[in-house]
Amino acid sequence: MKPNFSLPLRIFNLNCWGIPYLSKHRGDRVKRLGDFLNMESFDLALLEEVWSEQDFQYLRQKLLPTYPAAHYFRSGVIGSGLCVFSKHPIQEFTQHVYTLNGYPYMIHHGDWFCGKAVGLLVLHLSGLVLNAYVTHLHAEYNRQKDIYLAHRVAQAWELAQFIHHTSKKADVVLLCGDLNLHPKDLGCRLLKEWTGLHDAYLETRDFKGSEEGCTMVPENCYVNQRELEAFPFGIRIDYVLYKAVSGFYISCKTLRTTTGHDPHSGTPLSDHEALMATLCVRHSPPQHTPSATHGPAERSRLISVLKEAWAELDLGMAQARWWATFAGYVIGLGLLLLALLCALAAGGGVREVAIMLWTPSVGLLLGAGAVYLFHMQEAKGLSRARAELQHMLGRAREAHDLDPESQAALFLGQQEGDRSEEQ
Amino acid sequence: MKPNFSLPLRIFNLNCWGIPYLSKHRGDRVKRLGDFLNMESFDLALLEEVWSEQDFQYLRQKLLPTYPAAHYFRSGVIGSGLCVFSKHPIQEFTQHVYTLNGYPYMIHHGDWFCGKAVGLLVLHLSGLVLNAYVTHLHAEYNRQKDIYLAHRVAQAWELAQFIHHTSKKADVVLLCGDLNLHPKDLGCRLLKEWTGLHDAYLETRDFKGSEEGCTMVPENCYVNQRELEAFPFGIRIDYVLYKAVSGFYISCKTLRTTTGHDPHSGTPLSDHEALMATLCVRHSPPQHTPSATHGPAERSRLISVLKEAWAELDLGMAQARWWATFAGYVIGLGLLLLALLCALAAGGGVREVAIMLWTPSVGLLLGAGAVYLFHMQEAKGLSRARAELQHMLGRAREAHDLDPESQAALFLGQQEGDRSEEQ
Repeated sequence: MKPNFSLPLRIFNLNCWGIPYLSKHRGDRVKRLGDFLNMESFDLALLEEVWSEQDFQYLRQKLLPTYPAAHYFRSGVIGSGLCVFSKHPIQEFTQHVYTLNGYPYMIHHGDWFCGKAVGLLVLHLSGLVLNAYVTHLHAEYNRQKDIYLAHRVAQAWELAQFIHHTSKKADVVLLCGDLNLHPKDLGCRLLKEWTGLHDAYLETRDFKGSEEGCTMVPENCYVNQRELEAFPFGIRIDYVLYKAVSGFYISCKTLRTTTGHDPHSGTPLSDHEALMATLCVRHSPPQHTPSATHGPAERSRLISVLKEAWAELDLGMAQARWWATFAGYVIGLGLLLLALLCALAAGGGVREVAIMLWTPSVGLLLGAGAVYLFHMQEAKGLSRARAELQHMLGRAREAHDLDPESQAALFLGQQEGDRSEEQ
Repeated sequence: MKPNFSLPLRIFNLNCWGIPYLSKHRGDRVKRLGDFLNMESFDLALLEEVWSEQDFQYLRQKLLPTYPAAHYFRSGVIGSGLCVFSKHPIQEFTQHVYTLNGYPYMIHHGDWFCGKAVGLLVLHLSGLVLNAYVTHLHAEYNRQKDIYLAHRVAQAWELAQFIHHTSKKADVVLLCGDLNLHPKDLGCRLLKEWTGLHDAYLETRDFKGSEEGCTMVPENCYVNQRELEAFPFGIRIDYVLYKAVSGFYISCKTLRTTTGHDPHSGTPLSDHEALMATLCVRHSPPQHTPSATHGPAERSRLISVLKEAWAELDLGMAQARWWATFAGYVIGLGLLLLALLCALAAGGGVREVAIMLWTPSVGLLLGAGAVYLFHMQEAKGLSRARAELQHMLGRAREAHDLDPESQAALFLGQQEGDRSEEQ
């Protein structure tokens, strides 16, 4: 590799809103997306919410000349909705399906059936190893009373851990996707602090697009305006995040978003805005070499966010156990009811009523059984993430205690944490 | 690190058969296991089938002075049953729960409820990075007609991929556990070929223990003798596997197994035999440096086993889709039956019969719905593993085609594959 080595990377990310039968103008939007991707010829196009495999196959055929490599990440009942198109050969790919992803009985939300996941691609570009990740976390349906908060925090942690453990030999790490997290949300901070990924929007000096880099904006005709009432400019929940691991330096030259319209006019490509980043990988100048260990300020921020995530998962666990216990009582009640109905049916008198009540009783029993099993599994999943967090918190604290400089920074971090709890 | 650096590693592995209420003499065996581990003071003790968290907590307390670090891997409804005790600090840990793990309606087998997984520990020992993995794959209940074969092959592939992607910067990789695979089984060959792990039993020159290294032997009083009828010496399904990744060389100095008895007399510690290995890590002499790329013979074996696994997953997918289609028809039938019953109930005459048939009809409908969803998800999971295999097969073939030497080796590999298919 030459000393003045420089590798430009043009990246495209879009949540495509491709729900068969439900998403408006799906066919037309997919067609226009294909035309746009072909015309722009990015290095990598990472897509979410391509729920129909037919749409992926259509795009694959259409994009074959420009993007010879492609992959669709299958999981869950419906699928993860994730896919990628690459101008460069894909060396390896794999995926990790999140342990927790909502509740099967919240059918109208549907996330549980999707099998939300993170997909990993390994590419070798001009002698460097690029690990590109694409993901889509559980949606946020009610920001004021978010019953999925613990699941999303657990997903953010699993995502961070998956990246941490699979990218140790990568030169460059790239994560794109719909995180369903605002920039200051706990999950987003946890992910950034633990992986050291940088946010293209915050890093670039050349940004053009929607106000504040939002990726769901009120100007978009497909967006439910009621959901954005509290956010006049919209919300930023889709990201391009990156880091260089060793000996390399990566920067974001330009970042563009669509602004509620087709890039060339007409109706938008999706209800989300597309992100288009031009990254540049160079040999690391000595002053930019990322240090292997965190400094006291970073460590203090990490400790603070790990503590916050731990507390959130703990709350989630208590909730999951409450539901499991409640379902346990309902199972007991259902069994009692069934015994009573059997006695009534055998005794005559209200026999017909007893027989009629069989169906709901058996249903109650089976339903409560399923709810019990589900929440037991939920508690185990949250407990697993909490244990990992606790371990890393312990290790971060140890490192911190060994460093006298850190004490002041930790104190400041705690104050910040307290303030955010008060808000 | 000194040039004559040498690190001995004493490893213990046991499937503990710790099913609450069902496994005989559980309390006594757990107590004796604790005494034995304390006395022997291994570097790492990796345990499977510790289904009760109380047993883990008991061992943790008992082993604390000798093994200050410990972790219990939680997953699924019951748990993964995996835990570890380490003499050395654990730097990091995480886990991967297998996507496919049997069927929820096979309640008597119970694997689905366990959330079988692979646990990863990262340890830093004398300046080298050790990635230790512990796992337990789906049990084999009927070797002649194994309905879980595709799931076990998919698990072996996920395990291999997890190790492959998370160990890229490790100096030494260690995998222990109950694979529920005989040494020549497809899953075992796939795992070894893809990860390059070596089998301690095959590598060591100093083995003492049961005949042919078996880990379930007829001499063990807890073993169901009928299950071993076809195997007079027993079966070898528990393993210590290892490799050194770069600059290091690892060898197995000694391997011991228990032989159906307590290591010091009395009843055995479990229905499985314990494995005790003394490994030795050294700086790699030049002739032992493992080559980064496979040679033609290795590549040919890899291609052959990838093809075999692909075919097995393909069969599994066809089966899963058949079940999903069948469940779809049953759903249709159930809906028809319900409509008919409604009409009969409204019309009078056989009203009571109609009402009585409601429960089974609704049950049929819900049951078929659940079976449909489950097998759709199963097909997606198998399809995911098959796609990864197919990609790696393509890449292995490309590398092979570029190397003229490989043609003869591939031909030989194919012949071997054909022979094994004929058997």
